[in-house]
Amino acid sequence: MNIVLEKRVEALGLILPPAPKPMGVYRPLLIVGEYLYVSGQGPILNNRDLITGKVGQTMDKDQGKKAARQVGLTMLSTLVTHMESQHKIKRLVKVLGMVNSTPDFEEHPYVINGFSELMAEVFGEDNGIGVRSAVGMSLPHNVAVEIEAHFLLEE
Amino acid sequence: MNIVLEKRVEALGLILPPAPKPMGVYRPLLIVGEYLYVSGQGPILNNRDLITGKVGQTMDKDQGKKAARQVGLTMLSTLVTHMESQHKIKRLVKVLGMVNSTPDFEEHPYVINGFSELMAEVFGEDNGIGVRSAVGMSLPHNVAVEIEAHFLLEE
Amino acid sequence: MNIVLEKRVEALGLILPPAPKPMGVYRPLLIVGEYLYVSGQGPILNNRDLITGKVGQTMDKDQGKKAARQVGLTMLSTLVTHMESQHKIKRLVKVLGMVNSTPDFEEHPYVINGFSELMAEVFGEDNGIGVRSAVGMSLPHNVAVEIEAHFLLEE
Repeated sequence: MNIVLEKRVEALGLILPPAPKPMGVYRPLLIVGEYLYVSGQGPILNNRDLITGKVGQTMDKDQGKKAARQVGLTMLSTLVTHMESQHKIKRLVKVLGMVNSTPDFEEHPYVINGFSELMAEVFGEDNGIGVRSAVGMSLPHNVAVEIEAHFLLEE
Repeated sequence: MNIVLEKRVEALGLILPPAPKPMGVYRPLLIVGEYLYVSGQGPILNNRDLITGKVGQTMDKDQGKKAARQVGLTMLSTLVTHMESQHKIKRLVKVLGMVNSTPDFEEHPYVINGFSELMAEVFGEDNGIGVRSAVGMSLPHNVAVEIEAHFLLEE
Repeated sequence: MNIVLEKRVEALGLILPPAPKPMGVYRPLLIVGEYLYVSGQGPILNNRDLITGKVGQTMDKDQGKKAARQVGLTMLSTLVTHMESQHKIKRLVKVLGMVNSTPDFEEHPYVINGFSELMAEVFGEDNGIGVRSAVGMSLPHNVAVEIEAHFLLEE
């Protein structure tokens, strides 16, 4: 449980969904040296439902962007829940944004901005923005967006 | 050649396929500082054939899971063959599990567990389980599963 | 601006396209300690157009390979433009090569070799070749190939 991040999130008026339980044999996050790695996260709602759908078919790009923001809230919940209090995030390093999209969908960056704008809001324009790829594939449980990331911790 | 890992694998009664030769301009693995990175591996059988097929279409999820386990055996073969004896794996850090699946397949985590359960068996419940994403895409030579990973080495 | 890399590129007679501007909320590259991470890059031509198309459908594998080489030139342009002069690349570590391909396309490694051969040319057979995965998915703006990578810097 990380109180500092939880307070930051509360100060911004953000409501976090419950942290996801792993759907398989993996950890929600792992700290190795100065790096914190987060497993691929889907968009979990406050009632524990997932936002599902294929962007470009059953959802438009703005619905996809909202789903990506919800992935960000889910990842923050994972961080608050599983990161111990002595750890503090220094900056976001790298994001792989995966959109459950039709083969001809072209606006993956627009969708994943929903996540990236939230990270900039929480960690700041400098530390909350890292490198990124935003691409399309098929996703577990038909979730609309899945995102994995790693962060740098304060020493 | 890494004798320690080979002995561990033998003690578990696991049979490793021949280590794959790179299908392009890349290395099977690379060590940088404390990190060991492994290139994307497919499921190679003991007779050097690949397990091919599209999960959700020509294969079901249990056949996919077996293919993922075979990817794990293939990765162990790569590690035994190309990791020198002075190196010792401390833990698995991160896995990207890629399933050659139909657009509507939803059980990528179930499939990739075939790999992850093997890693837990070989390296232990703590050190063999890291962060993970398990997603769907199209893969070289129509292999059923491809997995890339990186590990932390003992100092 | 990195003059050393620019001179190396010029000595090889390579013409670099303009460095891409981020299409979303991310940085073109980020340096953390000894690592340099580059965001997913598409194939930008000298006139700023993108090479678009689906490999296996509107493009064949050789056109895909040329697009992957152009992604390499684009990434070099990003490095020359955004890497400061005190930094020097020691080696390529890891590449994720993403081909905008049909579900049944099988030659992703052949395509991504277009990028990898260029890296070997610029950084050498040893330092220019790292670990890699080469896979298929859908890509922003229908670009034919997108590649993300990270490098190790000289200390």
